[in-house]
Amino acid sequence: MTTSVKALFFDVFGTLVDWRSGVARAAEAMLAPRGHALDWGAFADAWRAEYQPAMAEVRDGRIPFCKLDVLHRKNLDRVLPRFGVTLDEAAARELNLAWHRLDAWPDTAPGLVRLKRRFVLAPVSNGNISLMVALARRNGLPWDAILGSEVAGDFKPKPRVYLSACEALDLAPAECMMVAAHGNDLAAAAACGLRTAFVARPLEHGPGRETRPPAAADIVAASIEDLAAQLDA
Amino acid sequence: MTTSVKALFFDVFGTLVDWRSGVARAAEAMLAPRGHALDWGAFADAWRAEYQPAMAEVRDGRIPFCKLDVLHRKNLDRVLPRFGVTLDEAAARELNLAWHRLDAWPDTAPGLVRLKRRFVLAPVSNGNISLMVALARRNGLPWDAILGSEVAGDFKPKPRVYLSACEALDLAPAECMMVAAHGNDLAAAAACGLRTAFVARPLEHGPGRETRPPAAADIVAASIEDLAAQLDA
Repeated sequence: MTTSVKALFFDVFGTLVDWRSGVARAAEAMLAPRGHALDWGAFADAWRAEYQPAMAEVRDGRIPFCKLDVLHRKNLDRVLPRFGVTLDEAAARELNLAWHRLDAWPDTAPGLVRLKRRFVLAPVSNGNISLMVALARRNGLPWDAILGSEVAGDFKPKPRVYLSACEALDLAPAECMMVAAHGNDLAAAAACGLRTAFVARPLEHGPGRETRPPAAADIVAASIEDLAAQLDA
Repeated sequence: MTTSVKALFFDVFGTLVDWRSGVARAAEAMLAPRGHALDWGAFADAWRAEYQPAMAEVRDGRIPFCKLDVLHRKNLDRVLPRFGVTLDEAAARELNLAWHRLDAWPDTAPGLVRLKRRFVLAPVSNGNISLMVALARRNGLPWDAILGSEVAGDFKPKPRVYLSACEALDLAPAECMMVAAHGNDLAAAAACGLRTAFVARPLEHGPGRETRPPAAADIVAASIEDLAAQLDA
């Protein structure tokens, strides 16, 4: 089933990079010197919890498409007061760049380097192009192209995002495989005709909050390196 | 003037890759076994001569935007009869991929690898994403992102193509430098506020047909490696 696959598309937040630790670390670095002593993990969770509702406004056509950076900033401005924090414009702008400075899981870059020998690789993330470029340069992610929301003009799990990525590479959906740690992303990709690979990320939401693999993936992998091994790359 | 530059945008056909030799070689490989003995360089020139008129139809709004691959194919179908050649659909499709299999000038890949240390690098070409990916994989071009016509939905030298590339990276035009072997490309980029670098490619159109550097470039370089040296990369 997977021998016809020519391109691999990757979810990024959670699947390739550890957003929770990175956002918590950036918040602490910015806010602790200003006298705040928050539960930094809880702050990261609260910021991330605004992610899906903000994108839903775009997906439902209530507001026009905008870069995820813009939504992240709106969400930050919504979340900060709940934690009793006020930031000036420059500091809020800087903290919003926390999402550009996330660290990849240790297996991500070596796994992608192996996979690149056999497959075309692209993020198909809800993150914007500049955000994807920053994460790639920081972590050595060897993308062939940056595809996803900004190229499609909409957010996953809308079909257009997956299908525009296939079209950009002149490939049929069945020649593309979506790789993600999230069942809803894979289910949406599968509904468009893509192959799917689930990568377990038990620590995405912090210790003791593991999610279970979905039943529907063509491949279930423990890491990106394991995915490379299973795909003979 | 160039110390504020954060991203370098590259023209590809002629500037980074040798389209004339590559197209001539592919045409010979496809047509000689079918009994044709053409002037292969003249065939490449004729196919390329249809390039600007075909894009002009899109730029002028007479036809909707489409991938350059589609225009290359239309142009091929227009040029073949002039050389007395008939090809079936599969062969024409295969010959059209000549543009995906061009070789880079020898200084291109090593120069880009050096430049990547200091700058974000992207093609801002009229070529489509899949074509840019194919050339990059073939020649080891270390792009951070594929920008240009397909992301902008129009063709150079329309301002939108240069400006959409800046916007994708969250950069002001003055923080971006267009690199090209063609004065009209650089003049259009400069009119949008970008910095410019001219790279001499005396062999683009074959021996003895050198074009002269434009007066307006911020940098004039003899190669991509020379550009890297001049930018201290």
